[in-house]
Amino acid sequence: MKISIIGAGSSYTPELIEKLAEIKERLPVTKISLMDIDSKRLEAVSGFCKRYAKKLDLQVKLESTTDLDKAVSGSSFICPQIRVGGNICRINDEKIPLSMGLIGQETTGPGGFMKALRTIPAMMEIADSMKKNAPDAWMINYTNPTGIISQVLHDYTDIKCAALCSGGIRPAWIVSEVLGVNAKDVKYDIFGLNHLNYAYNITIKGRSLTKHELNKVASDVDTVSAELSVKLGVILSGYLQYYYHRNTVLKKLQKEKKSRGEVVLEMEKEIFKDFNNPEFADKPPSLKKRGGGGYSTVATDVMTAIYNNNDTWHVVNVPNNGVFKFLPDNAVVETAVLINSSGIKPVTAEPPPKAVWGLISMVKNYEMLTAEAAVTGDYDTALMALTHHPLVGDYDVAKKLFDKMLEANKDYLPLFFKK
Amino acid sequence: MKISIIGAGSSYTPELIEKLAEIKERLPVTKISLMDIDSKRLEAVSGFCKRYAKKLDLQVKLESTTDLDKAVSGSSFICPQIRVGGNICRINDEKIPLSMGLIGQETTGPGGFMKALRTIPAMMEIADSMKKNAPDAWMINYTNPTGIISQVLHDYTDIKCAALCSGGIRPAWIVSEVLGVNAKDVKYDIFGLNHLNYAYNITIKGRSLTKHELNKVASDVDTVSAELSVKLGVILSGYLQYYYHRNTVLKKLQKEKKSRGEVVLEMEKEIFKDFNNPEFADKPPSLKKRGGGGYSTVATDVMTAIYNNNDTWHVVNVPNNGVFKFLPDNAVVETAVLINSSGIKPVTAEPPPKAVWGLISMVKNYEMLTAEAAVTGDYDTALMALTHHPLVGDYDVAKKLFDKMLEANKDYLPLFFKK
Amino acid sequence: MKISIIGAGSSYTPELIEKLAEIKERLPVTKISLMDIDSKRLEAVSGFCKRYAKKLDLQVKLESTTDLDKAVSGSSFICPQIRVGGNICRINDEKIPLSMGLIGQETTGPGGFMKALRTIPAMMEIADSMKKNAPDAWMINYTNPTGIISQVLHDYTDIKCAALCSGGIRPAWIVSEVLGVNAKDVKYDIFGLNHLNYAYNITIKGRSLTKHELNKVASDVDTVSAELSVKLGVILSGYLQYYYHRNTVLKKLQKEKKSRGEVVLEMEKEIFKDFNNPEFADKPPSLKKRGGGGYSTVATDVMTAIYNNNDTWHVVNVPNNGVFKFLPDNAVVETAVLINSSGIKPVTAEPPPKAVWGLISMVKNYEMLTAEAAVTGDYDTALMALTHHPLVGDYDVAKKLFDKMLEANKDYLPLFFKK
Amino acid sequence: MKISIIGAGSSYTPELIEKLAEIKERLPVTKISLMDIDSKRLEAVSGFCKRYAKKLDLQVKLESTTDLDKAVSGSSFICPQIRVGGNICRINDEKIPLSMGLIGQETTGPGGFMKALRTIPAMMEIADSMKKNAPDAWMINYTNPTGIISQVLHDYTDIKCAALCSGGIRPAWIVSEVLGVNAKDVKYDIFGLNHLNYAYNITIKGRSLTKHELNKVASDVDTVSAELSVKLGVILSGYLQYYYHRNTVLKKLQKEKKSRGEVVLEMEKEIFKDFNNPEFADKPPSLKKRGGGGYSTVATDVMTAIYNNNDTWHVVNVPNNGVFKFLPDNAVVETAVLINSSGIKPVTAEPPPKAVWGLISMVKNYEMLTAEAAVTGDYDTALMALTHHPLVGDYDVAKKLFDKMLEANKDYLPLFFKK
Repeated sequence: MKISIIGAGSSYTPELIEKLAEIKERLPVTKISLMDIDSKRLEAVSGFCKRYAKKLDLQVKLESTTDLDKAVSGSSFICPQIRVGGNICRINDEKIPLSMGLIGQETTGPGGFMKALRTIPAMMEIADSMKKNAPDAWMINYTNPTGIISQVLHDYTDIKCAALCSGGIRPAWIVSEVLGVNAKDVKYDIFGLNHLNYAYNITIKGRSLTKHELNKVASDVDTVSAELSVKLGVILSGYLQYYYHRNTVLKKLQKEKKSRGEVVLEMEKEIFKDFNNPEFADKPPSLKKRGGGGYSTVATDVMTAIYNNNDTWHVVNVPNNGVFKFLPDNAVVETAVLINSSGIKPVTAEPPPKAVWGLISMVKNYEMLTAEAAVTGDYDTALMALTHHPLVGDYDVAKKLFDKMLEANKDYLPLFFKK
Repeated sequence: MKISIIGAGSSYTPELIEKLAEIKERLPVTKISLMDIDSKRLEAVSGFCKRYAKKLDLQVKLESTTDLDKAVSGSSFICPQIRVGGNICRINDEKIPLSMGLIGQETTGPGGFMKALRTIPAMMEIADSMKKNAPDAWMINYTNPTGIISQVLHDYTDIKCAALCSGGIRPAWIVSEVLGVNAKDVKYDIFGLNHLNYAYNITIKGRSLTKHELNKVASDVDTVSAELSVKLGVILSGYLQYYYHRNTVLKKLQKEKKSRGEVVLEMEKEIFKDFNNPEFADKPPSLKKRGGGGYSTVATDVMTAIYNNNDTWHVVNVPNNGVFKFLPDNAVVETAVLINSSGIKPVTAEPPPKAVWGLISMVKNYEMLTAEAAVTGDYDTALMALTHHPLVGDYDVAKKLFDKMLEANKDYLPLFFKK
Repeated sequence: MKISIIGAGSSYTPELIEKLAEIKERLPVTKISLMDIDSKRLEAVSGFCKRYAKKLDLQVKLESTTDLDKAVSGSSFICPQIRVGGNICRINDEKIPLSMGLIGQETTGPGGFMKALRTIPAMMEIADSMKKNAPDAWMINYTNPTGIISQVLHDYTDIKCAALCSGGIRPAWIVSEVLGVNAKDVKYDIFGLNHLNYAYNITIKGRSLTKHELNKVASDVDTVSAELSVKLGVILSGYLQYYYHRNTVLKKLQKEKKSRGEVVLEMEKEIFKDFNNPEFADKPPSLKKRGGGGYSTVATDVMTAIYNNNDTWHVVNVPNNGVFKFLPDNAVVETAVLINSSGIKPVTAEPPPKAVWGLISMVKNYEMLTAEAAVTGDYDTALMALTHHPLVGDYDVAKKLFDKMLEANKDYLPLFFKK
Repeated sequence: MKISIIGAGSSYTPELIEKLAEIKERLPVTKISLMDIDSKRLEAVSGFCKRYAKKLDLQVKLESTTDLDKAVSGSSFICPQIRVGGNICRINDEKIPLSMGLIGQETTGPGGFMKALRTIPAMMEIADSMKKNAPDAWMINYTNPTGIISQVLHDYTDIKCAALCSGGIRPAWIVSEVLGVNAKDVKYDIFGLNHLNYAYNITIKGRSLTKHELNKVASDVDTVSAELSVKLGVILSGYLQYYYHRNTVLKKLQKEKKSRGEVVLEMEKEIFKDFNNPEFADKPPSLKKRGGGGYSTVATDVMTAIYNNNDTWHVVNVPNNGVFKFLPDNAVVETAVLINSSGIKPVTAEPPPKAVWGLISMVKNYEMLTAEAAVTGDYDTALMALTHHPLVGDYDVAKKLFDKMLEANKDYLPLFFKK
């Protein structure tokens, strides 16, 4: 069984290797194809991964290639973790909005909007390659913004795609940690979009969380108000800070000397130095600082459930298909699903908290416009997306911002600059 | 046939008298009850109205009363035009938000939120009186915020209610004026909420408006960008300036020396001086400055269609009932309807412009929370409403703002201050 | 303004001429094109119509042609009233099912199923001609089965189409007649399909019908049980006898010596003899026996409303578009609409009687399958349609019946017999 | 952990004991309460069950009682398997319709209609007892008609209820048997109602069944046409013979000397003779002839998944909740679900075969009317249910039939005979 990692030059790759070693009994991978268009980064990562796999006793063939079709061919799972334009572009995504008094936010904000426009054409290429070279394979995507990307993949292709984020399963992890219960015993309805979700109707082995327990759990999420969580009766995604505390967050960001992209850029320099050091066969300390967010756990959970046909409750980004009535059937939402070999299907849910469906609708509307704009390269559709993003919400501002960002991303947006 | 005007001490009352005189053949009113709790204003207005009716040759019995039940009894149409707390409160509605860097806006903004909380209990009293004293009568409401008020009336009472605003029919008037066609021949789908609507799919006697014509028409609306109108393919409500040009509008408001409420307050002093002048039997010049927005035309059009059982296309605030799939069935929307004696029914519509359903959902969610809060007096529901208003959109800000506004409106919100 | 009548060799044509004369002030037709592929019938009818128009003082150019494109060109309204295969085929439609112990029923039964398969290809030709020769024209269809035909026209073409039947407005006529009120003052919600509808929520100038009045009205419909009407709280389409009293009806049909088609065939012989008699310039008595069902009234009401842009409540077959939630949006239903120049739009309705949505769903499912089968010529789709028709409801029976009927209609179903 | 069996005097009880012995590791039951109102049957069954449990080495306390509250108290799972009126009533259910030329069918036919009316009041008593004595317990219902019964339980109570039938999981068993694959690896979407379902979109470990395989599998179901199965692309419930082959089935039933109820009645005499024989500690041969339909497997699968919080794909009767758009949200359907400790939730499904949604809607409409009639005792609602049942479909027939059946069931329908 072959897995391919697209964008394997990412510093996240070793984390996935580590996880695959850990669960090799349940997911008997025999070949891993590491693919990247940046051969230098790829060389560094694959060199390290080979040493690391050996150390972890993961007996698997590690192939390194810059040829997408070669990587995809014969794979059961294709895992893209690409970053078009690299961290340089990310820094623009964060700083251009900030220069206009807006939060950039590289996934759910205007920064994520630009990232989507850059990334989606590359994802479409991967989907095309899958159609030709591995039509029965699953894409296990954790490239961001995963919600908008999977919107495109579901609307414009027919590949099988699991669009993941640890943010969906995190409420279970938090409850588990704070209340000392088994994470598997924590279930909930979850409503919203990637990096913008609300877990509600939370149960532990079938019994509802008490208000006191919810308060305890909510207090553990330090980016959003626990008081607000309790009022809504939910666990909030940490990313909701950009909506519910936008003024405070904006002031904080305006004070920071370096954007998150700039910090990561420096971090990565150190990490790659370590990767290139042939003496390192174990995870270097520089990598530990980077953090991984649990992506590898989620990705391998999903692959394992599909591979072994194990019925598994999970949280994935999937087309809504009627679960939330005020969203179109094809709107990709982050919600609870049943996974097994036959695919990923949302399970029905209680109605979401009465205060939040409107916000989610507004962001989803923005996401669907962005998805369409990314595929068509239509200026007006993109502008309407940004205009209706709740963190922008002003036509004049959106237009000025979009024009600036277009200019800064000129090299990565051929569709928008075609004659 | 009797009509009662509740809040008849309003300076709008003479406009309605004028209109009733104009259409007396089609709407044979025999008695008008002018009711207000402010006997001084009522006396001034009813005094003037009697002289004015005579001058207009409107032979009708004009009754003046401070007793709601008396006014309502035996009426076919009850027309509330109340302003709880008067213009003093309106000034607060505008200025408190502005002091925190937010647009107040007395109908669609946080100002309208407070107006709704103050006004709805009084509207419920009128509905109660109708149930007892005139169960078959129609309420013809043009008290603002009419959308939220009719949300409450539809959700919590079973009176017959037509919630009007000239903003719904204005696109026809504008097309008529700009293109020199008959307003009756202009039809459209219209999507949105009161003071927040989009007219689209516009036709003149069945043929679609050209892009050139749309541009010409849109250029005539000076508060919102014609360019944006054309990109969306719609005529925008002028109130959408608060959403699409919020930064510019905010700056303008911050520069103004007097809020609109303060201007109106002064204007009204002059008007009432004129009303009290027994020599005036015709509309005083002071009143002409006040403007009426075409309310009386819309109100009498609707009453005439109901009274005569004339099938009539119109735009009214009504429960959605499936016309727009992403809104709840009971969500009151401002949309195209068929009116006749059997009632007011929305007609189905083409899907609205793809860029705007999210914004409308978010505002409608806010409106429905506000409606519930106004009836229950629940602090948290009200706070969640304000938090999710797109012009606020921040929990910390919403809380601070709500607490300030509650304090300023203490005398008008018994439900929120009950033990 | 030109109107064309397709299938003008029908004995219904004079009735339409008569009506057009009656309303010539409101619908100023200058040219009527009479088109038929049967030149002999056409000659007879057009000869008579010229004499008749003269007598009625209808000053209009009457053109007679066998060329579809010529008839359609320049028309504002195209009125098809075709009968593919003529009354001979109708007799088969009635008698083949009866020979197997089933009600044939030429519109809502298995007979109507075969009529749909024969008729739809011809209707598609008319639609094609309209697209080429009169793209802005309206088709005013009263060819049966009008529900299935308009399902096809809405699903497979984009012509403007009003699919009419007097059955939709008949409840108003009956209430008017029985209770002595103005038909225009009778309004209702109406749910169902052509020849299979339920009028409910009936009002006279806004006030509800009493149970006593309903009983009186229902007793006037002699084909269906008044007791059942009252239990359901509706006025039932007379065609519902085939569902609610099927055993009695079947026995009655089995006893009749001649089928309705055979009776009509004989009647028409006499009528055409009269048409061909140059001395007749007025409606011959033979024609009066034929009956017309009020089609011409409905057709001209609709044309007048469109032509003059008069807002008019009516009942037409239109895509459901969300009015009845348990039917697909594109499912054509017979329901209340608003008509004016901008088109025909269903108005929303109260939920239908709780006992009948399932039956309507089952018949609509059959209709949609029949529509698809008629366009594609797919044997299995047609067989599944007939199998799931509630008056058949048996796979073995459906198969035997369909094979017999296919054989009998071989000359009219090229799509089903293509290699 | 305690389980109670209500109606334990049924000959099915030993099968459940046997299964509980088999899975005792996974479902550690410590006490089983056998409850019945018929103390004689209860004595026979519980006597045998004690001997049988001992033989199977199931170390559990077996309590025997005629007191419902006592049985329910402290139970984790309550398993009703009641038959109100016994087999005598069943014989009426089958024979009265047959005497009028209709299929009786004790679950999906008019027979099932009467069984529902008799059974539902008793089920409501059990639900009441659960509310008082075991509010957190699950009802595991396999009393028929389980679809209508669970419709009532979901609409009128808030107990937790799993309404089961082996018919939902049977397609997996058949595919497993015919194609030699693991039943757990067979997944599908399933649409319909209890004893009236269609399994489609069938996969084996994620790959679709070929047409050839489907044909092979369908040929194994001997009650319905394999040809029809293949045309629809589904595995049909065997009970669909009453719809798709109703004429053949009717003739067959009319020829049979004894109804199924009469056969069972005789069989049971023999079985109870064996139960009462203290020498039998193993399943007597008479019992083997009775058949059990796999109920015990399904019941224990579900209890195990809930008890152990094991995510499990299954097929259960649950409120639709948006999965099938043309059915109301509260309509109970038999469909694929995810079960774990937090409950039973339908998973979303591909649209069902295009030919069958209408039939299911019609039967569901009948079921919902029957549910309401059973709870209210309203004659008209019951009559409308029977009138719209596709196997009746005639008002005159329904009325005659209902009156006969009411008379025959007088002793069991107090709600219908109350003054």
